[in-house]
Amino acid sequence: MTAVDLLTFGEALVSLRSAGPLATGGALTMHLAGAESNVAIGLARLGHRAAWAGRVSDDELGGYVLRQLRAEGVAVDHVTRDPQRPAGLMFLERRTADLTRVRYHRAGSAGSALGVEDLRPALAAGTRVLHLTGITPALSDSARAATRWAAETASRAGTLVCLDVNHRAKLWSRDDAGAVLTPLAGYASVVVASADELDLVGEPGAAEETVVAGLLARGVTTVLVKLGGDGARAYTREGVRHAAALPVTAVDTVGAGDAFTAGYLSGHLDGLDLAGRLRRAVTLGAFAVAGDGDWEGLPRRDELSLLDDLQPGSTLR
Amino acid sequence: MTAVDLLTFGEALVSLRSAGPLATGGALTMHLAGAESNVAIGLARLGHRAAWAGRVSDDELGGYVLRQLRAEGVAVDHVTRDPQRPAGLMFLERRTADLTRVRYHRAGSAGSALGVEDLRPALAAGTRVLHLTGITPALSDSARAATRWAAETASRAGTLVCLDVNHRAKLWSRDDAGAVLTPLAGYASVVVASADELDLVGEPGAAEETVVAGLLARGVTTVLVKLGGDGARAYTREGVRHAAALPVTAVDTVGAGDAFTAGYLSGHLDGLDLAGRLRRAVTLGAFAVAGDGDWEGLPRRDELSLLDDLQPGSTLR
Amino acid sequence: MTAVDLLTFGEALVSLRSAGPLATGGALTMHLAGAESNVAIGLARLGHRAAWAGRVSDDELGGYVLRQLRAEGVAVDHVTRDPQRPAGLMFLERRTADLTRVRYHRAGSAGSALGVEDLRPALAAGTRVLHLTGITPALSDSARAATRWAAETASRAGTLVCLDVNHRAKLWSRDDAGAVLTPLAGYASVVVASADELDLVGEPGAAEETVVAGLLARGVTTVLVKLGGDGARAYTREGVRHAAALPVTAVDTVGAGDAFTAGYLSGHLDGLDLAGRLRRAVTLGAFAVAGDGDWEGLPRRDELSLLDDLQPGSTLR
Amino acid sequence: MTAVDLLTFGEALVSLRSAGPLATGGALTMHLAGAESNVAIGLARLGHRAAWAGRVSDDELGGYVLRQLRAEGVAVDHVTRDPQRPAGLMFLERRTADLTRVRYHRAGSAGSALGVEDLRPALAAGTRVLHLTGITPALSDSARAATRWAAETASRAGTLVCLDVNHRAKLWSRDDAGAVLTPLAGYASVVVASADELDLVGEPGAAEETVVAGLLARGVTTVLVKLGGDGARAYTREGVRHAAALPVTAVDTVGAGDAFTAGYLSGHLDGLDLAGRLRRAVTLGAFAVAGDGDWEGLPRRDELSLLDDLQPGSTLR
Amino acid sequence: MTAVDLLTFGEALVSLRSAGPLATGGALTMHLAGAESNVAIGLARLGHRAAWAGRVSDDELGGYVLRQLRAEGVAVDHVTRDPQRPAGLMFLERRTADLTRVRYHRAGSAGSALGVEDLRPALAAGTRVLHLTGITPALSDSARAATRWAAETASRAGTLVCLDVNHRAKLWSRDDAGAVLTPLAGYASVVVASADELDLVGEPGAAEETVVAGLLARGVTTVLVKLGGDGARAYTREGVRHAAALPVTAVDTVGAGDAFTAGYLSGHLDGLDLAGRLRRAVTLGAFAVAGDGDWEGLPRRDELSLLDDLQPGSTLR
Amino acid sequence: MTAVDLLTFGEALVSLRSAGPLATGGALTMHLAGAESNVAIGLARLGHRAAWAGRVSDDELGGYVLRQLRAEGVAVDHVTRDPQRPAGLMFLERRTADLTRVRYHRAGSAGSALGVEDLRPALAAGTRVLHLTGITPALSDSARAATRWAAETASRAGTLVCLDVNHRAKLWSRDDAGAVLTPLAGYASVVVASADELDLVGEPGAAEETVVAGLLARGVTTVLVKLGGDGARAYTREGVRHAAALPVTAVDTVGAGDAFTAGYLSGHLDGLDLAGRLRRAVTLGAFAVAGDGDWEGLPRRDELSLLDDLQPGSTLR
Repeated sequence: MTAVDLLTFGEALVSLRSAGPLATGGALTMHLAGAESNVAIGLARLGHRAAWAGRVSDDELGGYVLRQLRAEGVAVDHVTRDPQRPAGLMFLERRTADLTRVRYHRAGSAGSALGVEDLRPALAAGTRVLHLTGITPALSDSARAATRWAAETASRAGTLVCLDVNHRAKLWSRDDAGAVLTPLAGYASVVVASADELDLVGEPGAAEETVVAGLLARGVTTVLVKLGGDGARAYTREGVRHAAALPVTAVDTVGAGDAFTAGYLSGHLDGLDLAGRLRRAVTLGAFAVAGDGDWEGLPRRDELSLLDDLQPGSTLR
Repeated sequence: MTAVDLLTFGEALVSLRSAGPLATGGALTMHLAGAESNVAIGLARLGHRAAWAGRVSDDELGGYVLRQLRAEGVAVDHVTRDPQRPAGLMFLERRTADLTRVRYHRAGSAGSALGVEDLRPALAAGTRVLHLTGITPALSDSARAATRWAAETASRAGTLVCLDVNHRAKLWSRDDAGAVLTPLAGYASVVVASADELDLVGEPGAAEETVVAGLLARGVTTVLVKLGGDGARAYTREGVRHAAALPVTAVDTVGAGDAFTAGYLSGHLDGLDLAGRLRRAVTLGAFAVAGDGDWEGLPRRDELSLLDDLQPGSTLR
Repeated sequence: MTAVDLLTFGEALVSLRSAGPLATGGALTMHLAGAESNVAIGLARLGHRAAWAGRVSDDELGGYVLRQLRAEGVAVDHVTRDPQRPAGLMFLERRTADLTRVRYHRAGSAGSALGVEDLRPALAAGTRVLHLTGITPALSDSARAATRWAAETASRAGTLVCLDVNHRAKLWSRDDAGAVLTPLAGYASVVVASADELDLVGEPGAAEETVVAGLLARGVTTVLVKLGGDGARAYTREGVRHAAALPVTAVDTVGAGDAFTAGYLSGHLDGLDLAGRLRRAVTLGAFAVAGDGDWEGLPRRDELSLLDDLQPGSTLR
Repeated sequence: MTAVDLLTFGEALVSLRSAGPLATGGALTMHLAGAESNVAIGLARLGHRAAWAGRVSDDELGGYVLRQLRAEGVAVDHVTRDPQRPAGLMFLERRTADLTRVRYHRAGSAGSALGVEDLRPALAAGTRVLHLTGITPALSDSARAATRWAAETASRAGTLVCLDVNHRAKLWSRDDAGAVLTPLAGYASVVVASADELDLVGEPGAAEETVVAGLLARGVTTVLVKLGGDGARAYTREGVRHAAALPVTAVDTVGAGDAFTAGYLSGHLDGLDLAGRLRRAVTLGAFAVAGDGDWEGLPRRDELSLLDDLQPGSTLR
Repeated sequence: MTAVDLLTFGEALVSLRSAGPLATGGALTMHLAGAESNVAIGLARLGHRAAWAGRVSDDELGGYVLRQLRAEGVAVDHVTRDPQRPAGLMFLERRTADLTRVRYHRAGSAGSALGVEDLRPALAAGTRVLHLTGITPALSDSARAATRWAAETASRAGTLVCLDVNHRAKLWSRDDAGAVLTPLAGYASVVVASADELDLVGEPGAAEETVVAGLLARGVTTVLVKLGGDGARAYTREGVRHAAALPVTAVDTVGAGDAFTAGYLSGHLDGLDLAGRLRRAVTLGAFAVAGDGDWEGLPRRDELSLLDDLQPGSTLR
Repeated sequence: MTAVDLLTFGEALVSLRSAGPLATGGALTMHLAGAESNVAIGLARLGHRAAWAGRVSDDELGGYVLRQLRAEGVAVDHVTRDPQRPAGLMFLERRTADLTRVRYHRAGSAGSALGVEDLRPALAAGTRVLHLTGITPALSDSARAATRWAAETASRAGTLVCLDVNHRAKLWSRDDAGAVLTPLAGYASVVVASADELDLVGEPGAAEETVVAGLLARGVTTVLVKLGGDGARAYTREGVRHAAALPVTAVDTVGAGDAFTAGYLSGHLDGLDLAGRLRRAVTLGAFAVAGDGDWEGLPRRDELSLLDDLQPGSTLR
């Protein structure tokens, strides 16, 4: 029961990826998916002690989830095996070269039954950073309560809390999300959102600057706005700073936002200044989009500079 | 809205087969699964007009189910697309060479929401045989009511009703199954069961002869007891007849029982005598176990004699 | 024997796609191929009643062709099984990222033996649109006669006839093609051609405007000139209208022309005006090029708007 | 243009193997097939100089055939590339665990157009053994003439001629085969046949001993009767000798007869006595059935003793 | 640095398995291999705390090894990353259905550079059982010294030492092995060997009883003789006890011996009597041979009884 | 022992390509790799007589290397099988879409033990061109001596010698490479280098013009500077000439330089002028980058013009 650098929690899904159209059948490949586990893996790959908490089915699919997390060096000491509920699943179909479609099979899953008691021991063991996303509170009443409890508890204990808004339109409406996430953001030091979901932690429809001002006023110290291929903006009380994305050939954008957050938090744990934290954030984002998979392409610490000044078609030999 | 030779209904699942252990991940292949759809395919391959009814999710996975049924020539005119509920899934893992393990993800699925209204038009269109299994009434209250309604309606209309007991221990207990299936058997002309599940349509724990006598007394004309590699026994008021299994190398026993039933019903539709019906039943069973997949190896009509006097390692060229 | 919205006929091939160079061996995947069946599938996916007629070998490969057509909901009631001739095949090799090479094995195939008698019952059953391509008359004398007979019969009956020129240089010369297709175009209301094959239904080497003028003068109401990534031009007596292609990442252009035609005919069947028909045509073309396969990526009706305003790397979840 | 140890000729096919039922589609793998090329490969693997002659299409599929032959060290100096005719194909489907089904697409193929002129240079270059099969004369009139010419020419020159009857029921009837093969056997020193095809080189329906006596009387020195899992019988003027098959787990019997013949001829080239030749014959047959593929599992010379006294489940490490 | 139930050490290899013959190319799959890591995984799957120590290359292949060990819950806290030496590899080819062939590429590997300093911290952390094999001392002088040091140190500290002879003929001769392993056995409480390698821990060529008597006289408390499909014999001072193998269909015997040892040691850790320890040993051996892979099929604790009274072709559903 | 058009020598590796990250495991595919064998294959595909010499392990992996070379028509008469040393391996991982990473396992390999005696018979048999690369002298002392001996011997005999610098940073430093390659270049008529490695055959850090001037002064007649997507520059005493790259979609740049060199030497053997030689060089380079694999996409002679004026998405049919 050792303290970790980062604790995160939520639902880790078994993602079934089809190479072609789902309706015509064919092979599927299994992957671990989940915004929170992506962040944990991103940090573990860089050598930070990262832990993930949540509920996992007590069958082969739950075993698969744990195998993958352990393989990546993420601590799973405080994971609850649920003997009653099945694993949460998602089907991921590359509908066209430009469009990926996700179908969730997670209603009533083990992961969605997360509650306060599942998080208590993990939080008690201690962490420097607590990371949460706007997905977990959308899963169930108990998961919402658990998220709030964890945010409040960590915040009170002086632990840095990071909230990634991560709106999932297939789980809840923008109105429902906003009503839950806006108060939640009050516990966070770092808030991460893409440009089109930022108003879910502010007034619906409000401009970026307005939402940011409100967050900073409520005690948030850093607001990170993800801009995809355009990089990111970071707002602090000192002002705004833009970081460009690294120029890479994008092959799979899923997981890029989580990689960005992981990079930022890694920079924080390493004591980098804002420019350094942003640089690491866009670097991890670049690795995520430059390879297949949600997290499989994330870098080890000795790989962090691999994409610097890279020519397409390079070979290291 | 033409009459068919055989109508069956139930839940058709998307079966995800893993080559190796599920927990270590890897590739899965998609298959259509379902005892009732297996029977429908068995008959359609032999040239009979077969229809399947049920509820199917209104997404790519539901589309996959319909694609497979249509591909096999099974009429799906009376299938309901369910816009709310997901597809029923199962994971099929070859745990060892001798042991296959199935995990269902079908609670709350489109298929389990089957109700009387889903079956009314299909039954109204007319059929010579109605086939039902003991799986459907285990899915939900509405599915149980629909099964009973269909059996009663068809029976009253003089349609031959065939019931395959098909006990699924992961869906309900033997006690619950027996309480539902015993009265249901009263509507059937043909009852099919493996030796160890026969008492689910009689007194719990009763001997085969006792159960058979009871069924025949209640109006069942034929009781078929599946014996796996030992073939089958057929009981009628004329007595009992045994049919040996065809000697083939077994590679996958899943679906063998459904193939047996399909063969029997095909013989019935063709007007064969009992010996001929049993011969076709064990022939289809042999095709099912001699190839991979639940139904993929079932024969076309011109292939029915392929396994007669077959030497292992034969090549047709 | 119900009337359909669209009837088409021709040869449906088993296409064997290699991932790498054919000469170095490796895995091939089976696909259904054929310009006419592509069009039929395109319409069936959108909910129109589409039928395909032709001759198919009476073995497993012919069975494969029928399985795929049925799976896609294309009516195959009037398909002839040929007990003597083999299936037509093609090998499709991605020679480079930009160049696909096709090798036909279709001489003497079941499909090439198509004759008038194979089409009579299908045409008698009734259709709103008859679609033909310039490939079918290149297959054999009997196929040429059958194409002409069908065009003439349908035209006389007031059925809308659509001809897609679809020149196949490996089957016949431009001269031979022109001599057959130019008179054939006289039966058509809609003529579709790419810019470089338009003069096959006019004077060899004639300019686009000249050929179009001639076609309109001969009774064709709409001439569609496919321009690939540049969209298409539609000529009617009212003048010419251009439709831009949808901006998508192209991964496989095979089948794009057939998708375009299917979209146009779907718009016609839905009663759309010319702009609407063209919009649907370029939309189906975009789906075809945005995914692998000749027809596998074609949209269901509820997917028609998926590509509107699409950002590369989008995820629906 | 060096003399070789063994020259053989015929048609080499591209064999497309499906893992599951052909009609349900899926992946195919490409293989080189052909009884004569199997024999050539069997000898080349053992270090003998083996050459194959025949006609091969002048495209990627013909290129594939040559690549495989060259890869195995079979000399192809005297192969003719046919610029007009396509490659001969076959589809090989494992219908059940015990039954393999072959569909030929070889009518009009490059290989079937074989003629005397294709063989003249190869025969002129010199060989110690000429091997022919009863398949080649079934392909076309010219192939039949070429086979006869080669047999006669070699026989006259004192070259050992080996004929493997290899009846292919899908190419010609037993009557047609017998009428051609019986005279052909007169040129041979070694005749190989399975028990049920032996009478194709004698009186139809004649007993084994009768046919053998006739062959020996006509100048054949050795008659080899293949008995599958029961080994083989060798008849010479000295009498009959039986060789048992090696006890191996059979996984694919296709090619076993060719392997047997290759082993026998290798023993002949090495100067072994009859017992030694038979031992090598059954050894190669055992390797063929113990692995997948028609020839892929054949042994190198240093592997010849690998199967001696083998326990199932052995590991060399 | 917590004490564990079992500590083992050695070389963990990246095993590259080919589906067909290596020489004809094709796909290879990566697996973790190593007798010691197999034992550690077997124990970890049953819930014991197991640790593995050794040297692993500091690149992606070393990363793969660690990922697999961590995934299986084996503690790798005391593994040394070697920045200079490459990963040890092996190629595993299924030469025939009955014969597997292994080719090592491990000379100069990271794993073979194992030395005393690599083991010191792991041993210092404490363990109830130390497991060693006769493979490690064959790797290098330093590995031999390290093995001896560990055996002596653990033995002196009263830790139960288990030695599995595991002779690898491709690494050293029987003479060399015997000279090293015989003294090593003196430190062990449990010695495991197959019948044909038992004399490597005794007099060369000595009978089983003689060797056993010598070992028991030298302080070994239990000698386990593995008999493959015939089960095993266990010798103690109380006498000899035989355990039959479980009747399963064998598909891959690699790793069966390690599974047997893991089962025995698990029984020891659970405090079972000799009969119980042997039962668990043959149970794990049965799981190993009943599935593909060296360790992939090993059971979780709740699966231990799955193979009891199993009928071939069973399905759990 | 016939004279050839081109002789080359070096180490041919078994390259193991992973589709995804190596550390997460998965499937690998086997390929033949080696700059020199790439050049030999490039020439053989165009119909030139090409030979490759070197040492190859005497096991299945060495057998694989020879199978591939023979398959491509490269003469391997003078290859030495090494009974002691293993095959050289490399792992090739697509780290991101833009970055490929190679890990060598070639220390102590059969190929690296190359010596003068391995080359003597091949050189004695005669060749019009001798091709060498800067990789071979980096493998071992004996390989360095053999390279120098071959260059000197051929140069003295008036054979055209071509040297491709091909610096491999993982094998030796720039300083070490320069010290060996600079004198070696003195034996060459043609020197090929990428822009950033040109100074390895001149003064370290010297400008392109300076190095070129020095080489021309030392007797080199042509210096080819490869510029990747920017084409190439050719320097002769007449001056400099630039050739643009062909505009193709690049999918795999590995092997492009070798293809370029092969094209140049093919042009030389065909007697083309400098412009023609450069045109063929960039054409082969284009084929190499336009397809997967190091050499698999290289053109046959009849394919040389396939890429001229190619539109993306073209289909030949």
